[in-house]
Amino acid sequence: MVISSRVRLARNLAGFPFLCRASREQRTRVLDIARRRLTTTGIAERVLWVDVHRAPPLDRTLMLERHLISKEHARGVALPAQGAATDAGAAGGEPRGVAVALPDESASVMVNEEDHLRIQVVKPGLELGAAFEAANRVDDALEGECEFGTLEYAYSQRFGFLTACPTNVGTGIRVSVMLHLPALKLMGEMDKVRRATRDMGLAVRGYYGEGSEAAGEFYQVSNQTTLGKPEPAILRELEQEIVPQVIEYERASRRLLLEKRRRMLEDKVFRSLGTLRGARLLTPEEAVVLLSDVRLGVLAGLVPDIQAQTVNQLVLLTQPAHLQRVLGRELDQGERREARADFVRKVLGGN
Amino acid sequence: MVISSRVRLARNLAGFPFLCRASREQRTRVLDIARRRLTTTGIAERVLWVDVHRAPPLDRTLMLERHLISKEHARGVALPAQGAATDAGAAGGEPRGVAVALPDESASVMVNEEDHLRIQVVKPGLELGAAFEAANRVDDALEGECEFGTLEYAYSQRFGFLTACPTNVGTGIRVSVMLHLPALKLMGEMDKVRRATRDMGLAVRGYYGEGSEAAGEFYQVSNQTTLGKPEPAILRELEQEIVPQVIEYERASRRLLLEKRRRMLEDKVFRSLGTLRGARLLTPEEAVVLLSDVRLGVLAGLVPDIQAQTVNQLVLLTQPAHLQRVLGRELDQGERREARADFVRKVLGGN
Repeated sequence: MVISSRVRLARNLAGFPFLCRASREQRTRVLDIARRRLTTTGIAERVLWVDVHRAPPLDRTLMLERHLISKEHARGVALPAQGAATDAGAAGGEPRGVAVALPDESASVMVNEEDHLRIQVVKPGLELGAAFEAANRVDDALEGECEFGTLEYAYSQRFGFLTACPTNVGTGIRVSVMLHLPALKLMGEMDKVRRATRDMGLAVRGYYGEGSEAAGEFYQVSNQTTLGKPEPAILRELEQEIVPQVIEYERASRRLLLEKRRRMLEDKVFRSLGTLRGARLLTPEEAVVLLSDVRLGVLAGLVPDIQAQTVNQLVLLTQPAHLQRVLGRELDQGERREARADFVRKVLGGN
Repeated sequence: MVISSRVRLARNLAGFPFLCRASREQRTRVLDIARRRLTTTGIAERVLWVDVHRAPPLDRTLMLERHLISKEHARGVALPAQGAATDAGAAGGEPRGVAVALPDESASVMVNEEDHLRIQVVKPGLELGAAFEAANRVDDALEGECEFGTLEYAYSQRFGFLTACPTNVGTGIRVSVMLHLPALKLMGEMDKVRRATRDMGLAVRGYYGEGSEAAGEFYQVSNQTTLGKPEPAILRELEQEIVPQVIEYERASRRLLLEKRRRMLEDKVFRSLGTLRGARLLTPEEAVVLLSDVRLGVLAGLVPDIQAQTVNQLVLLTQPAHLQRVLGRELDQGERREARADFVRKVLGGN
């Protein structure tokens, strides 16, 4: 039920204004320092560096679909620089970049997103502790002396790490887990879960984070506060108390569905599978919703001839940029709908 | 595209009031005369007689689904007799019956529906002439002398046959064809067809006649006027002018769909087929809608492994009473939804 665990640290360089007040020259310097630092300090076996503002749209979307960069970072319209050209967005946006740890892409660092640096580590399953340690290793590796001089974080003895948005001040940490909660949704319990998690100071978001809708019952649960609570407490609470509770709740809903409403559950699962196997036109949104139902069926043991891994891959590979990468050619939206349906039928054995 | 052709004649016995003014005794006498007449005059090889007011609900629904009787006749609530007990409906309703020609059920005569007699002949395909001749043979066989005395129709030299509702006065004939027009519906042309046929004095109704919605793009087109137009003219106009026009329009829409929007058509057809093959719960309404899509696909040559005849049979056999007859047991609504889905999957080879 836990798709992945994610730890994100917000950091800014001392001696530079926050991005909302930085000139293009200052941004370029931050980018330059960060790039050199990230590609040489050994944060991973190999590091892929991308100048996001120069990357083609398809590559940016590809990174967004892989959750390596945020929607704002992909678009490049979140934080126009002071005095920036109005067509900066169209031309690729303000100078910004991302470093991706290869080969597993488990760590990435966005440069010049909302803060100068956004360190992110994602691990499959419920692995917040491991993700936190990995994020810390990157964090430690970046700060300090190196051949290019000293990289110093903006830090206050009183508040902790200083960040562009006050909600991140302090630890600068955001911890989140991506959950698949289709049974709770089917039983009409998601509102209750949302309220309960909110009361515990957590946010429930959609598949692509802030401002996005839950697609196909995939939810991101994350902490809201970064000030006044030590990192280990934030982590422990989420990993050992809250997430296990939500998981147990989802598990109980699945048991209940299987025992009391098995027919309804099967109906939902096999209608969605039948639609995926029959459709000749498919949007990415519908694909995720239908795949979410099938995933529930697979995990509940109702669909013996399909692997959960196959469904997980389809969730990613039916997204626009990935689809085009898999097929090895660029397609417009209408062509993608056809190609997506054809691809799904091929993988799931449709009519 | 023409599922069936139907001719109906409305007749009343001279010497008895119309049913809206008839006492229970008078109704019983009309029923008695009609029953004896219908079961002995040789209107068919064999005749099945049913006292509808004494028939179990399942049998009544069965006859309704086969279009042998109307919804009102099945329910028995259309025309309460003067001074009838208020619970007459609950007890099966006023005395009424139906004679069904065996073995092919192509002719039936409802007794004490809106008129004393409603003669109906249904033929597969576009066969209005043959249906009209068959209805006339029944009509002729009923009127006249026999061992029980004379049966005389209420007839006026000036108006023609007299009927309970003025719209039927004159010839008492209603001629209708059941059409399957899914391509016109898909192309958004049905409103145009409705308007055009209405302008020609025709009515477009749903699958179960008056007051019913079109289910799955099955439409009944019938004449509205019975006065001032000779029967052959009504027939010829519908059979040789109007229906061929509608058919050509539907055919052109199918060609257009296949040539210009084949992908969209296939998407529609195979989604519906996928849903039918996957569903574990199915209402009769949804079944007809989905089967209608599949029927279009079969006739357009898109679904080589399914016969049109199979789909036609499923349209009938998924109706509540037929389903129970096929399965040989009575089921409540919830059980029927499950059994219907299971039956469809068995026939269409579902997952």
